[in-house]
Amino acid sequence: MRLLTLSDGTRDGRLHQVDRDGARVLPLAEARTLQEAMDHWETVLPGLRAAQERLDADPELGEPFDPARALAPFPRACQWLDGSAFETHSLLIQRAWGLPVTGLPERPLMYQGLSDRFLPPNGVARFPSEADGIDFEGEFAVVLGDVPMGTPAEEAARHVRLVMLVNDWSLRALGPVEMATGFGWLQCKPACAAAPFAVTPDELGPAWDRARVCLPLEILRNGTPFGRANGSEMHVGFDRLIAHAAYSRDLPAGTILGSGTVANAAYAEVGSSCIAERRAIEQLEGGAATTPFLATGERVEMRARRPEGGDLFGPFIQTVQAGSGG
Amino acid sequence: MRLLTLSDGTRDGRLHQVDRDGARVLPLAEARTLQEAMDHWETVLPGLRAAQERLDADPELGEPFDPARALAPFPRACQWLDGSAFETHSLLIQRAWGLPVTGLPERPLMYQGLSDRFLPPNGVARFPSEADGIDFEGEFAVVLGDVPMGTPAEEAARHVRLVMLVNDWSLRALGPVEMATGFGWLQCKPACAAAPFAVTPDELGPAWDRARVCLPLEILRNGTPFGRANGSEMHVGFDRLIAHAAYSRDLPAGTILGSGTVANAAYAEVGSSCIAERRAIEQLEGGAATTPFLATGERVEMRARRPEGGDLFGPFIQTVQAGSGG
Repeated sequence: MRLLTLSDGTRDGRLHQVDRDGARVLPLAEARTLQEAMDHWETVLPGLRAAQERLDADPELGEPFDPARALAPFPRACQWLDGSAFETHSLLIQRAWGLPVTGLPERPLMYQGLSDRFLPPNGVARFPSEADGIDFEGEFAVVLGDVPMGTPAEEAARHVRLVMLVNDWSLRALGPVEMATGFGWLQCKPACAAAPFAVTPDELGPAWDRARVCLPLEILRNGTPFGRANGSEMHVGFDRLIAHAAYSRDLPAGTILGSGTVANAAYAEVGSSCIAERRAIEQLEGGAATTPFLATGERVEMRARRPEGGDLFGPFIQTVQAGSGG
Repeated sequence: MRLLTLSDGTRDGRLHQVDRDGARVLPLAEARTLQEAMDHWETVLPGLRAAQERLDADPELGEPFDPARALAPFPRACQWLDGSAFETHSLLIQRAWGLPVTGLPERPLMYQGLSDRFLPPNGVARFPSEADGIDFEGEFAVVLGDVPMGTPAEEAARHVRLVMLVNDWSLRALGPVEMATGFGWLQCKPACAAAPFAVTPDELGPAWDRARVCLPLEILRNGTPFGRANGSEMHVGFDRLIAHAAYSRDLPAGTILGSGTVANAAYAEVGSSCIAERRAIEQLEGGAATTPFLATGERVEMRARRPEGGDLFGPFIQTVQAGSGG
């Protein structure tokens, strides 16, 4: 099942389904918004499944999909938790920044991110200044149903309802400053953007495995391939991340949980999912980081394909704008 | 104007108004939920004001207020940002914990907290274990309208729509562990609780001053006074906190922004707003912290009175339950 949210002038947009080719969309009668569907999932699921089957079976049904009308699946979410679950990424950053090279700690790394807004997949991403080191982070994410406090990792994966593709925009110059306070990131982590289609795990076929999205996350910077690291090397699966998050709280339906920057040990071959990691590699291998962070007008595209081919999460190209001008 | 949310079986509850004595409540026709009112504030405000005047003028109107039915004003909010704006609190913790005694840094301290759930004001607050060091934090908070990215402090205070009283529950044993990662607090900061009434700043009269809540925040532990620190000593006002938060993002209507633990230089006289601060004072003055953190069955009550007397935020008494038993 493939859900998306189209702009209708409201803050939460209007829930739709999209056919397998990403060509036709149909509004859903079962729920106005994706959060509403999350709130009543067990009740609305049969209707959503039936509607998807009708849309996929009848090529006359629905209207053409206009990517310019797409919002993020949750334009406004109740929770965004972001892990850092790829050890290759941690090791590279630790080595390049002169930190103790410990890899990932025993306790999963995760921060509470802003969830009040996910930027639309196609359009302008605004930031205050290029001097802040504007960077993308390609991540897979899962959307959860209600997870009771204390849920162990062995029982966690069954709470995954949807899979998403997220660009966790980051302002790198502010990162170390905010990490040093112990309070975590705030200005460093503006709103993320998300690809338009949120899909049920069965859409991934065998690529949903061990609570991991085992697909390459393709990233293009101004149309040029930048990375295609595979989510399969996630050191800590979504199951363990869920259990970590649920230690001292219930997680509500509609919680979005990110994997952190997707990274592979074969980074020399597959590239990176953020500029900071590429700069770390450059510094380690050549003594200096040479790839610049993003400037106004640059375009960042992310996508993942089904195991059998075909776009999975829909068109996702953002253009950077820094400063109040432009 | 005094707004509250009553349980109606939905996740977001039903918006009501309460009379000045906190005795009678009336459902509002203008908006079903407080978030809906926030989303359309300019449109619904005249109707809300008129309804409040009718309720206050006619003692026959409405039904009796049942605190057991009260939810937090926002049972599920889109954003919770929490500052640390009282220098006395920072200095005490820094001295007691052997940190560099710098007071508050030039950049305001703030973290992104979980907003998906605010616990009801009267009832049980559940935590996984007493061993985690269960503590309360008494804070004032403001609810914002839409704040555009880049709003300066001088223009920020006019975005304050409501004032709230919040108990920022904290698990102290987890704090240093999570601060050391640089990712900030996650397990350490379970859901906050909030007093039932969210009030417009004019309800505070002269006590809303310089973007600060200049009232004592009274805290009782098991019925015994624990603290009554005044919000007037907020080192960084809500105006500067808003500007800090809005540096790299728009803040959406319904954002709740906390002051951090209210603390006064005259702590010897007025007490503290959290156990951790009292323990810090004990350690500094007597060499050892003696006040224990909370155990199952303990009750925490918070309140603030109008300058002219009378409860402002409504009844707010929570009982701790640690572990899955009980």
